[in-house]
Amino acid sequence: MLKGIPKVISPDLMKALLSMGHGDEIVLADGNFPAETYSQRVVRADGHQTLDLLNGIMKFFPLDTYSTHAVSLMQVVEGDNVKPTIWEEYLSVIQKYEPQFKKFQFLDRYDFYERSKQAFAVVSSGEEALYANMIIKKGVVTDDGIGNR
Amino acid sequence: MLKGIPKVISPDLMKALLSMGHGDEIVLADGNFPAETYSQRVVRADGHQTLDLLNGIMKFFPLDTYSTHAVSLMQVVEGDNVKPTIWEEYLSVIQKYEPQFKKFQFLDRYDFYERSKQAFAVVSSGEEALYANMIIKKGVVTDDGIGNR
Amino acid sequence: MLKGIPKVISPDLMKALLSMGHGDEIVLADGNFPAETYSQRVVRADGHQTLDLLNGIMKFFPLDTYSTHAVSLMQVVEGDNVKPTIWEEYLSVIQKYEPQFKKFQFLDRYDFYERSKQAFAVVSSGEEALYANMIIKKGVVTDDGIGNR
Amino acid sequence: MLKGIPKVISPDLMKALLSMGHGDEIVLADGNFPAETYSQRVVRADGHQTLDLLNGIMKFFPLDTYSTHAVSLMQVVEGDNVKPTIWEEYLSVIQKYEPQFKKFQFLDRYDFYERSKQAFAVVSSGEEALYANMIIKKGVVTDDGIGNR
Amino acid sequence: MLKGIPKVISPDLMKALLSMGHGDEIVLADGNFPAETYSQRVVRADGHQTLDLLNGIMKFFPLDTYSTHAVSLMQVVEGDNVKPTIWEEYLSVIQKYEPQFKKFQFLDRYDFYERSKQAFAVVSSGEEALYANMIIKKGVVTDDGIGNR
Amino acid sequence: MLKGIPKVISPDLMKALLSMGHGDEIVLADGNFPAETYSQRVVRADGHQTLDLLNGIMKFFPLDTYSTHAVSLMQVVEGDNVKPTIWEEYLSVIQKYEPQFKKFQFLDRYDFYERSKQAFAVVSSGEEALYANMIIKKGVVTDDGIGNR
Amino acid sequence: MLKGIPKVISPDLMKALLSMGHGDEIVLADGNFPAETYSQRVVRADGHQTLDLLNGIMKFFPLDTYSTHAVSLMQVVEGDNVKPTIWEEYLSVIQKYEPQFKKFQFLDRYDFYERSKQAFAVVSSGEEALYANMIIKKGVVTDDGIGNR
Amino acid sequence: MLKGIPKVISPDLMKALLSMGHGDEIVLADGNFPAETYSQRVVRADGHQTLDLLNGIMKFFPLDTYSTHAVSLMQVVEGDNVKPTIWEEYLSVIQKYEPQFKKFQFLDRYDFYERSKQAFAVVSSGEEALYANMIIKKGVVTDDGIGNR
Amino acid sequence: MLKGIPKVISPDLMKALLSMGHGDEIVLADGNFPAETYSQRVVRADGHQTLDLLNGIMKFFPLDTYSTHAVSLMQVVEGDNVKPTIWEEYLSVIQKYEPQFKKFQFLDRYDFYERSKQAFAVVSSGEEALYANMIIKKGVVTDDGIGNR
Amino acid sequence: MLKGIPKVISPDLMKALLSMGHGDEIVLADGNFPAETYSQRVVRADGHQTLDLLNGIMKFFPLDTYSTHAVSLMQVVEGDNVKPTIWEEYLSVIQKYEPQFKKFQFLDRYDFYERSKQAFAVVSSGEEALYANMIIKKGVVTDDGIGNR
Repeated sequence: MLKGIPKVISPDLMKALLSMGHGDEIVLADGNFPAETYSQRVVRADGHQTLDLLNGIMKFFPLDTYSTHAVSLMQVVEGDNVKPTIWEEYLSVIQKYEPQFKKFQFLDRYDFYERSKQAFAVVSSGEEALYANMIIKKGVVTDDGIGNR
Repeated sequence: MLKGIPKVISPDLMKALLSMGHGDEIVLADGNFPAETYSQRVVRADGHQTLDLLNGIMKFFPLDTYSTHAVSLMQVVEGDNVKPTIWEEYLSVIQKYEPQFKKFQFLDRYDFYERSKQAFAVVSSGEEALYANMIIKKGVVTDDGIGNR
Repeated sequence: MLKGIPKVISPDLMKALLSMGHGDEIVLADGNFPAETYSQRVVRADGHQTLDLLNGIMKFFPLDTYSTHAVSLMQVVEGDNVKPTIWEEYLSVIQKYEPQFKKFQFLDRYDFYERSKQAFAVVSSGEEALYANMIIKKGVVTDDGIGNR
Repeated sequence: MLKGIPKVISPDLMKALLSMGHGDEIVLADGNFPAETYSQRVVRADGHQTLDLLNGIMKFFPLDTYSTHAVSLMQVVEGDNVKPTIWEEYLSVIQKYEPQFKKFQFLDRYDFYERSKQAFAVVSSGEEALYANMIIKKGVVTDDGIGNR
Repeated sequence: MLKGIPKVISPDLMKALLSMGHGDEIVLADGNFPAETYSQRVVRADGHQTLDLLNGIMKFFPLDTYSTHAVSLMQVVEGDNVKPTIWEEYLSVIQKYEPQFKKFQFLDRYDFYERSKQAFAVVSSGEEALYANMIIKKGVVTDDGIGNR
Repeated sequence: MLKGIPKVISPDLMKALLSMGHGDEIVLADGNFPAETYSQRVVRADGHQTLDLLNGIMKFFPLDTYSTHAVSLMQVVEGDNVKPTIWEEYLSVIQKYEPQFKKFQFLDRYDFYERSKQAFAVVSSGEEALYANMIIKKGVVTDDGIGNR
Repeated sequence: MLKGIPKVISPDLMKALLSMGHGDEIVLADGNFPAETYSQRVVRADGHQTLDLLNGIMKFFPLDTYSTHAVSLMQVVEGDNVKPTIWEEYLSVIQKYEPQFKKFQFLDRYDFYERSKQAFAVVSSGEEALYANMIIKKGVVTDDGIGNR
Repeated sequence: MLKGIPKVISPDLMKALLSMGHGDEIVLADGNFPAETYSQRVVRADGHQTLDLLNGIMKFFPLDTYSTHAVSLMQVVEGDNVKPTIWEEYLSVIQKYEPQFKKFQFLDRYDFYERSKQAFAVVSSGEEALYANMIIKKGVVTDDGIGNR
Repeated sequence: MLKGIPKVISPDLMKALLSMGHGDEIVLADGNFPAETYSQRVVRADGHQTLDLLNGIMKFFPLDTYSTHAVSLMQVVEGDNVKPTIWEEYLSVIQKYEPQFKKFQFLDRYDFYERSKQAFAVVSSGEEALYANMIIKKGVVTDDGIGNR
Repeated sequence: MLKGIPKVISPDLMKALLSMGHGDEIVLADGNFPAETYSQRVVRADGHQTLDLLNGIMKFFPLDTYSTHAVSLMQVVEGDNVKPTIWEEYLSVIQKYEPQFKKFQFLDRYDFYERSKQAFAVVSSGEEALYANMIIKKGVVTDDGIGNR
């Protein structure tokens, strides 16, 4: 543990975040996500909620807000009458750090899997909420006021 | 995740617990414990509370109740007027699974470190409570009513 | 060994089961199955019966009962007048844990091999019964009464 | 699997047996034995009985019958009024292959651990019988009638 | 060395043979065969004759006698007026263990290489006879009289 | 790179800092320090100044201010009439983050080497100033106002 | 550190430069470049400026001046009204060592990524200037006056 | 070093030569050859001349003289008016050991690279002569007079 | 295989012999020698005779004839009335290559084991003769007539 | 190869030299030196002369001229009437780069071996001259005129 680093961020997760570059993506996966199968690198976060992880990550992570798919979610299966409440919580956390962020991209299950397979890493959490999987794309760190010195 | 396995138990932690034998010890270490230095094998559980981990572990873990030091804690430093409340919570969890368990062994900081270094594994948690470190010793799995079939 | 974990489940098998996600498959292979050739990860269970392994696994493993091929078997070769008795035993074990499960999918030998190659793992047993190979697909762990807390 | 090789003998166990030389020892350990801690090399045989393993091993394994401690057992703890029945079964299996074998050496628990630590390998079984741990010492393969051609 | 295991069978060769399954193939390659290039796994047997190796292997190896290419040889190059005498010796060894075996499949040099590349392992011997390379395919171990118990 | 993490902190350095616990030490070594020889783990920071590294590290690193040797320096060789100016700069950086810090411990060259060998890691910089080597000891992260949530 | 080797050149960077041959390329990447994703080998140079690295490298690196793309840059995005000042500094450093060098090749972002993926190595710096990424191609070391003896 | 083995033949080079089989190729590459990029296995011979290496290798290496491309060279670029003198030296060394060898095959630069990529190994020398790269193909070792006993 | 290298010398054995220096020792061990236990590096030569290996090795191996224990054997156990005939054969092979060699050193079993443990490598053969184990010490390769060019 | 780096310096040798610090030692060992046995890290330089290596190394290597044993040689065995001529050549090379260097330290054979075992690396050359082994100790790189910028 270190001062100012949320406890939910493990050493391996921090190393992955630091090693990613512009355009690289990281997947926050729920506890049922087939992380070993659809990833190039798995970061374990067993037992944690994706919202806690998102909060910890966004503190340091510049979002690629120029991209049309800075944040992607797994869309609700047709006929399934659910409006996942976790999405609003996600939006609120993201906009706290990146106020200019507007809206999510939605992917169907198999497209989401394919994108995960190309991602830099998949964080395997213990989240149990439905439709909680999320892909976030890294933007650029600059020194205009963000304080990267 | 699997049915009946608490989410806080990661695949690596479960593998370690299964591979331990009679007399082997596992350390539940708080977030400030120097786990890499005083262990032979580190199992990461960043961001978790030791009490959650203890609950998850005791569901499967037979305690070596014949030993005089089945569970060891780090004793309060002389002059430090603290009575750690977490100890009672520990006792309550342990006795839920091992009613015959009576009392803790107390070790000073450096003896605790030495024992950790000999232990099978150290679980590195995010616990922030004081005096929360604990060593538990594995007993014997039998089939007399415990149902190991 | 641990309390409540069948002895036939090795540490590596348990770790594999815990690491699998929704849609991932595991193969229970008989003693003659070319496991190294048709797999991405081999878990050894030399000398064991597939039925014992199935019993041990189903205790924890949520089946993907929504899938049309939650459980796949290797079909009897045309002209071969056998009705493998082990299949009924399989059905009985599976329905004990997943009562809503209805029927097996059947694959010919080479399709079975191809699916094995994509599976998360192949458990290499010592089973000698004919047509005993089986692929099972993992479903979703939820907390509605199954007690995954 | 191969013709004439008992199914309980895994590829890794056979490789270990073949690689051992005169005077090297192998430990048949029960399911509660701390195998990772007291060994240089662990061979997993989860869920198996030591008697089945002994039977499989003795088919190929020349015992060092000249040694006074060709076979060592863990002695009954003082005051413990048990006469382990498995010992007679062990004797019967061993004498079937090595008729000149006479009697076991007995070691107390910690001496047994020390010897295990020096052994070539520890076979970690699922045996639940008490006092079932055993160390066997390899002798010499000759071609005078044993048929090593 | 072990009782009843021919000395020419190294620990690694035995492990490979045990790990192979139904339909897997192993190549007995002469001393000039490009084993590293055309294989997935090389087992060294420097300085040995293929006939000695075949004898040692067939003692344990069930041949896939149902296959039309249970045993494949490298055919004589057109115009080359040789009738390799080693082939009859091969036939005699094979039929000693598998009396129902009838005839070899013949492959030209490059087809042989391609099959080797798909094989489970290539045993790199010191054989100097011409046309001595051979591929054998593993069958099924059953307990009907072969004694795999 | 991430927001709020100084660029001089490499992914490996951050991982090391996060993995350290209470009492673990890290060495900031100049460009001539024999880092491979006197360390258990080397973190490369070629070409950087120790002062930049110290600044980056202290932002996150809780100093063990209770210890009498929270920060150790290599003392000036007897007869050498130097008062290293870098020490005051060090003091100023450290007190900025840990105002209660009072004074350095001084070690002779070989004692310094011995402590380095026991340290968690040695950061190998490109510093050219004399007497710039430094060992810092990690304290405890608490949540009383430091904001580790 | 060594005499005559700029401090910014780490041991791993020097090893990579020495191991490269005629036509091999190395990428000097800014701090936001996705180096892990678009490379075969990453050399870390966290916190450094690309200009310092270029200066250090060109001292030893023969440029492939016969090639039409000895040095490639990432071109300014259409509509972006920037004339990166770092390019002139690059030109000046390169021509100091290779006076015959004339002009850069320009690649769009994705072509640049593709070339990076084929390159020998990507040096991951901490550069923050826009359009600072650069690929340089190695030429031939001869002994005509360059002094490679 | 050993008696009768030229000093220029390193342990790794000798191991590679011994492991190669009929038809396998080895590349003698000059000091500017991109050996890491166009090879499956690099054998370092920094600072040595290819002629010394060829001399050392040919003492043991049977050339595939039946092949039309037993030895391949990189052809002179069109318009380049050079007749490399090293080629005659190569021819003289090869014919000393393989008198029946007649003439080289010539490949253009990129075909040469492709062949290198398929070769068993690339020996990376310090040769500075132009057009000194060479590929040699291994033949068959027999015992008719060559004395391989 | 190579011209002039005996087939019994495997690539790994040759690499070991080449890597040894003045005073390093290699053990030729019979098939019952506990090679894994008493060595730092095992070279497999399953199924071969030590005499064949000695013949192959001595062709290249300079013996340290100045040493009083250039060649060491395991002495006959007191009371054992054997005069191993293989010793004379050993002597004859050694003197063929090193005529000045006079006599063996004899070690008892446990001293022999201790020396093996310090040796560069142990060659694990299939030798069945009694008292066939042997340690040979490497001398110096010079160019005075031995022809190391 | 690179401009200004002598060809005899391999990538691994350069990396070792760069990674060494003040007081670390490197051994230039002749072709008969038991390098694997008496070292922590071997750098191969098969077939090269120690003088060429020394020349290449001294171009970059600051000698620890303050030490009384900056350069150590293996002393002539008592009674051996040799005055190794290579020593004067060594002196001349060293003084070319370090004019203030005065005289060698001499060690007997076994002391030399012990020092080698503690050294950073042993460079294993093909040198055949007697008494050519040498240990050199690294000093400090400063920027006062040596030009390390």
